[in-house]
This record gives sequence, structure tokens and C-alpha cells, in this order.
Amino acid sequence: MEVKVLKITEDILGSNKEWARKNRDRLEALGILTINVMSSPGAGKTSLIVETIRRLKGAVRVGVIEGDLASRVDADKVHREGAPVVQINTGGGCHLDAAMIEKALLNLPLEEVDALLIENVGNLVCPAEFDLGEHRKVMLLSVPEGDDKPQKYPVMFSGVDVVLVNKTDVLAYFDFDMTAFLRAVSGLNPDVKIFPISCKTGEGLETWVSWLQEELKQRKVKNKDA
Amino acid sequence: MEVKVLKITEDILGSNKEWARKNRDRLEALGILTINVMSSPGAGKTSLIVETIRRLKGAVRVGVIEGDLASRVDADKVHREGAPVVQINTGGGCHLDAAMIEKALLNLPLEEVDALLIENVGNLVCPAEFDLGEHRKVMLLSVPEGDDKPQKYPVMFSGVDVVLVNKTDVLAYFDFDMTAFLRAVSGLNPDVKIFPISCKTGEGLETWVSWLQEELKQRKVKNKDA
Repeated sequence: MEVKVLKITEDILGSNKEWARKNRDRLEALGILTINVMSSPGAGKTSLIVETIRRLKGAVRVGVIEGDLASRVDADKVHREGAPVVQINTGGGCHLDAAMIEKALLNLPLEEVDALLIENVGNLVCPAEFDLGEHRKVMLLSVPEGDDKPQKYPVMFSGVDVVLVNKTDVLAYFDFDMTAFLRAVSGLNPDVKIFPISCKTGEGLETWVSWLQEELKQRKVKNKDA
Repeated sequence: MEVKVLKITEDILGSNKEWARKNRDRLEALGILTINVMSSPGAGKTSLIVETIRRLKGAVRVGVIEGDLASRVDADKVHREGAPVVQINTGGGCHLDAAMIEKALLNLPLEEVDALLIENVGNLVCPAEFDLGEHRKVMLLSVPEGDDKPQKYPVMFSGVDVVLVNKTDVLAYFDFDMTAFLRAVSGLNPDVKIFPISCKTGEGLETWVSWLQEELKQRKVKNKDA
């Protein structure tokens, strides 16, 4: 499938909540586990998605929606992995919203997808407040950003199901206090799962992929029971 | 002076443009060079401000406005350097606006300030579009974020006077193509000044501080002529 680039600059189609509900219903009906991936610019969202596709190849069919203000740099990287992908360009928009996702879903071969990864715009503020219709929210915090981010971006850290601490390979070169960071995140969000990873060396990625596969399994059991 | 924490959640006082003009007029009248410092979360804005204060001590009196969603972590760091500082907490707000700055100016001893550094909320999107009444816009891009950010955040890179490439001390540990980055930034913004720096080792900071002192000098000459 070719990379499609959608240029969306405003949501003229109704409230975000309503669109998110519609997306969720649709994805539920199709049995597609959907994950909203958020982080600062350059924390490693695209690398995570690429590494996840590689590790799930043959077992789980991954589809991807890429969000950026401009460019198709990330969609091209995902496309090279052979996964179906749609790039959303938000123009000036600082986050994806549910209406954009609805439009992207129309451009993906959903019948060939088991898990949908949505890469949000790089930003720790606005994406935290927009439900896209996803099942799980995941954020990456990279080591070079520092361990004080939970205090500064509490809405983001409070609202996610998983925090991935990326770039652990460079821990030795930064003053990052992992114990203080874990304490701060758990304080804001006691039920959150935290996985230290390195998309460069592969460290910790099997734990992340296992979590994803477990989520897929539980969703299938739930759908079968329904 | 004690650290003041202002909690501002909305702009109820009029359009941003109008407030920015008022701030600029006021700062001009007082002869205070004002710089809006923007970057992703964790790129090193506070470190840059702290290192700048240290290098200008005795020569230039620096005042600081700190912007964050929550916490006073950064203001406390600046306060320890002996500089007057006000912390703005935006609640959920993803950027500072001119009305917030106006309120902060009322809480600073402006007669004791030659240069005012404003640390915006960590975000490469929304801060790019809000004039605060500053004289110069400066952004930091840190090496770990990657060299592809100009393509993804063109509004930010197009609108600034200076781009500081921070954390050059870890260049060896990341795939950061400095030549490609410089070419991309110059393509978007031919007149921009680009200074590679490391707030950790001090590399390149003298060039940045010289630029700031030159800006101060030109402002004084201009005010004298007026």
C-alpha cells in the first residue's frame, strides 16, 4: 500500500468526544487493538513503532497512523517496514483529534490489521487531553529529557496506561535519577506500567511487546465472550 | 527577592497581540532586552538560563520569567543563582501568552533588570505562534531529539532569530547529522544564527553570551539615539 498524506487543519465535523466514541465502536467491532503513542519531539516514537512492527512480524499485523505538523518523514520509515500507514499533517495543530483519526481509518486496510499504533504529534501537553478512540494510551519519556518531567507535565503522566523510558543506552551520560523518576510517576499514577527500554540496543523491548500481545489476547477473549 | 508563583489558566483580558504590543512598549521604555526561549521539554532551557546568568554576573542584570504547566522546579533553580524570577503556572496551557507576561512583569523589580529571559512551556508547536512582546526569539534543539525536527516543526524553526543546538557533548552517542540539520534550518530561515553549545561542558556558550551582549549594546545605542 502506498503512503497516503492527509492534510487536516481543523475539526469542522463535530465534537471530539463524539468522534472518539464512533472510532472506538468501529475499532471494537473490527477487533483492532488501538494504541495512542505520545511523547516530546524526538523521544523515539517512530523508532518504537518500527521496532514493534519488526518484533511482531508474522504474528500480529500492525497498522500505523502518523501525526505531524508537516512532512512524511515518519510515514516513509514505517512504510519501509511493510506496514500499512497513513500520515496526517495537522498544519499548525499541536495534537491529533478523533475526527482526524476517523478520516485516517477510511484510508487504511482495516481488515488486514490486528493492532493499530497511532503516533501523536510530539508534544507533552495538548495530546494528553484529546481522546482519539484508542484503547490504551502509551507515552515515551527519553532519558535525555530529564527525570523532572512528571512534575512539569502531570496531566500527561496521570492519564496514560504505560510509560516507556527510552534511550536507556545513554543513561551513563545524563544525570537521570531513575529511582526519583519512578517514584514521581507512581505518585501521579499508581496503576501505570513502566518499562525502561532502548530502541537502539533493543533492551527491554521484549517486555513491551509481551505487554502488547497480552492486551491483544485479552481483547480477543473479551470479544469471543461477548 | 522570593520566588513568586502565578497560576494563570486563561486569558480573559483581551487579544494577545494587543497585550504583546503593550509589553513591548513597556520593556522598550525601560530599556530591557527581552528574549523568548523556546524548546521541547528537556532540551535544556533552564540550564541555558542558569549558565547565562553565571556568565553575565557583574556585567548584566538578568531577570527571568519561568513558564510551566505545573511546579516551581525551574524558578527555584534560577532563584538559587540570585536572579529575580517569577514562575507562571499555566494549568493545562501549552504556551505562554502576552497577558501572562504582563502579569509577571508586575511582579518583577524591572528597574533592576537589563535583560529579561522568558522560558516558555516546553513545546515546539504552540509557543511559536504567540508573540509575548519580546525583542528576540531563541530556540534550543538538543542533539538527542534528532536532526529531522526542522522538517516536522517548520513554523518554530522559521520564526526564530537564533537556534542553539544543545548537548553537543553527547554528539558521539547519537545519529545526529549536523550538516543536514544546518542545511534544513538555513533553508527554512536564511537569516537565523545557529550556535552549537553544551550547557554541561560550557562549549560554545561564550559565542551565545557575546551575541546577547551585542544585542544589549545595539539596544542601548538605539535608545540613546532616540
